[in-house]
Amino acid sequence: MDTKMSSMNNLFNPESVAVIGASENSAKLGFHVMLSLTKGGFPGMIIPINPGSKEIMGLKTFPSITELPYEIDLAIVVLPARMVSAIFEECLAKGVKGIVLITAGFKEIDDPKGTDLHEQLASIVNTTHVPVIGPNTFGMINLHARLNASFTPEFSLLRKGTIGLISQSGGMCHLLSFMAMRDDIGFSKIVGIGNRLNVDFAQMVDYLMHDPDTGVIALYMEGIDRPRELIDTVKTYKDKKPIIAYKTGIGDIGNQASRSHTGSLAGVGEIYSGAFSQAGILALNNVEALLDTAKALAGSPLPNGSGVAILSSQAGPGIAAADICQMGGLNMVSFTQETQDRINDILPPLALRTNPVDMGPAWYDSEAVVGILQAAMRDENVAGILLFMMFASANVDSIKGLSFLLKDRGQKKPLITCLSAPPGIWDEQVKQLEEAAVLVNFSTPERAARVMVNLNRYRSLMIEVPKG
Amino acid sequence: MDTKMSSMNNLFNPESVAVIGASENSAKLGFHVMLSLTKGGFPGMIIPINPGSKEIMGLKTFPSITELPYEIDLAIVVLPARMVSAIFEECLAKGVKGIVLITAGFKEIDDPKGTDLHEQLASIVNTTHVPVIGPNTFGMINLHARLNASFTPEFSLLRKGTIGLISQSGGMCHLLSFMAMRDDIGFSKIVGIGNRLNVDFAQMVDYLMHDPDTGVIALYMEGIDRPRELIDTVKTYKDKKPIIAYKTGIGDIGNQASRSHTGSLAGVGEIYSGAFSQAGILALNNVEALLDTAKALAGSPLPNGSGVAILSSQAGPGIAAADICQMGGLNMVSFTQETQDRINDILPPLALRTNPVDMGPAWYDSEAVVGILQAAMRDENVAGILLFMMFASANVDSIKGLSFLLKDRGQKKPLITCLSAPPGIWDEQVKQLEEAAVLVNFSTPERAARVMVNLNRYRSLMIEVPKG
Repeated sequence: MDTKMSSMNNLFNPESVAVIGASENSAKLGFHVMLSLTKGGFPGMIIPINPGSKEIMGLKTFPSITELPYEIDLAIVVLPARMVSAIFEECLAKGVKGIVLITAGFKEIDDPKGTDLHEQLASIVNTTHVPVIGPNTFGMINLHARLNASFTPEFSLLRKGTIGLISQSGGMCHLLSFMAMRDDIGFSKIVGIGNRLNVDFAQMVDYLMHDPDTGVIALYMEGIDRPRELIDTVKTYKDKKPIIAYKTGIGDIGNQASRSHTGSLAGVGEIYSGAFSQAGILALNNVEALLDTAKALAGSPLPNGSGVAILSSQAGPGIAAADICQMGGLNMVSFTQETQDRINDILPPLALRTNPVDMGPAWYDSEAVVGILQAAMRDENVAGILLFMMFASANVDSIKGLSFLLKDRGQKKPLITCLSAPPGIWDEQVKQLEEAAVLVNFSTPERAARVMVNLNRYRSLMIEVPKG
Repeated sequence: MDTKMSSMNNLFNPESVAVIGASENSAKLGFHVMLSLTKGGFPGMIIPINPGSKEIMGLKTFPSITELPYEIDLAIVVLPARMVSAIFEECLAKGVKGIVLITAGFKEIDDPKGTDLHEQLASIVNTTHVPVIGPNTFGMINLHARLNASFTPEFSLLRKGTIGLISQSGGMCHLLSFMAMRDDIGFSKIVGIGNRLNVDFAQMVDYLMHDPDTGVIALYMEGIDRPRELIDTVKTYKDKKPIIAYKTGIGDIGNQASRSHTGSLAGVGEIYSGAFSQAGILALNNVEALLDTAKALAGSPLPNGSGVAILSSQAGPGIAAADICQMGGLNMVSFTQETQDRINDILPPLALRTNPVDMGPAWYDSEAVVGILQAAMRDENVAGILLFMMFASANVDSIKGLSFLLKDRGQKKPLITCLSAPPGIWDEQVKQLEEAAVLVNFSTPERAARVMVNLNRYRSLMIEVPKG
């Protein structure tokens, strides 16, 4: 591991953390950072720094980092902007291995003093290999190390998983995390890169590509200072781990004069989307699509072609999904004769037995559903399967048969589903099937279909993009 | 009320219901229909009909409807298709006022016998004013009458509300209902019109326009037999109640030859969308958009213009929403001088104080948030407001101030929000604000922004569409 990687690794996996600006006053961010570390169950040493306190949250508190009798791996800084340069000098003298700088009031403010302070910090830190997350960030979270280095204790409620999120917006990190909590989606790391003193998208992608806990990298960005650096970095890692990105700020907001030129809106969006595609980054256009696609890339194999089969226990959802698949470049395949014969054996002639299959007559019969599903899984024309079933008390027993699939771990084709039921009826079973990596479930057939479209878009990107 | 309306009213508000084909065998639909009626708390008389039983679910059971000593308002029929003609004759002789025909196996099957049976039923029933829902349907639900005339007892879990849903797909009714249960969205009536013997979209729209419990009409359709009839009916009621529609089956599925002509896909979609617009029906293109827009039309005033203000406690969500508003035809207005002065008083210069407003510095301060919100509400340039806040323990107290708005019922502008928090923190407060019709909340800023775009699209339709 080179020095850069090893520095980043220390930043995300510290054995000791000092909170410079820790507080017992709940109106201060230093209070909430302490809460995040302690409630989040960080197993290492937590040291509050505050010259006015002897003890914070039951932990011995020191007046400054300089006076600490221990080594410190990570410093989290929440003091006002004007004090940060001096704190940085102290941190470096103390030999800290990484800094999370939550404090705002640097480059993002109108006052040129902010930019001066930023440059001052950069010149202090860039003589070293010490990576800094921020300034102007909520912080970062490494769920695999139980490290919640942020001012939001609730991030610790997230499940540990393989999605690494790098975001320019703290709001979006909070939003995506709250959505993920409701859907039980797991993350490896969540990083608010803020004003990017020396850790930008490229450095984070570089690190997460080496991070064994991260399988999928999701980016939220509003603007990139050094697009070439990111593009070149990403190309180096082609095919290693999927990268997906959501870019906002494509409209010309607030500029009355150019507002009527809606053509330019699409233009800016397309330029980004094109640059992303050329690098092998899959561009997405809303938080729901970002989270859905990350979840599928983390939990499903990739399709090896564009052929899709839709199996629906009710015609409506199948038809809706077929529209989206066709418009999204997927191929609504014809089944092989063998598959078609098998389906014809199972379903009576009154059902729609070609793709999309209406499994209506098999609504009660889990064996029939599993039989059709297995036939489609084996079909060489089929690269991915969409399965839709609405469960209620009239057919609730048929869901049990689906767990049969749990035993069939050999499947290498994506199975993207919308298994829907009234709250409580089926949530637990779906969760078990997702945890066993048998299927990936979404709340509507259209969301499931769009995910399949995006898996296929990513597959195409990997074929088209040259390695950098 | 004319005969037609009065017949429909009897159908949806019966005092007595007979289940012809009631059963105690849970493998039979007749069992689940009985469960729906009894568990759903229907306050009228429930009479099981089955020649082989004396009692079903504790209720006295009769061998046939003919032998009943009481009058019957509604008959629900779940017997096999071949028996239905005779049952219809019995029902009419008995003087029933409406029929729900759940049985499948008519026009939808390949066998011409199915169409013959359909025609036979039509000729029996069309000498009368008796409306028939179905055949080939899960049934219908009138939540205001606690009538669950379907084979899915869980529909009774839905909240009573003002959205009337008319659907060609039972699967979509189940899906939309399960989604609505999770989001606490209320319905007036849910009707699976199935193969439409004598009650089609036009008849249902006609009835729901007169139904005092219904405020918004949502349609899901795959194909329309008599589009002119629907269009003419809708035009008659212009401006009375909003109608929104989601039409699927626009792709040329399964037709290998025409599949590559993707142009024709868009064409079909556009023809429908154009026809809907001319009638004053708002076209939507997925279940999420259908439900979100129905919820907003049911819970919010309409904007009186296209000017929108975005107030976000974090920059990211505001920027994402601004992109969608601009592309969707909304006008990201400049504030009046009075509003701008007020916002400048509240927010420090380092914040983005123009539209979209970044309320970051007021993140902790509910008085500041309410002050900005009230200024935007009063601004004559602003027709609708998008408000985004992510809450966690660091700022959870600031949400309390928002309930201040509860007292300000005078607001006549839509307030569409994404108030997001970890599960449990804020759900109850959002629900209370929604119930008080103060705001309408969505899980992402993009969904909220798309809803505002759709409210404005509906407003434009009402200006453009001539009254039929």
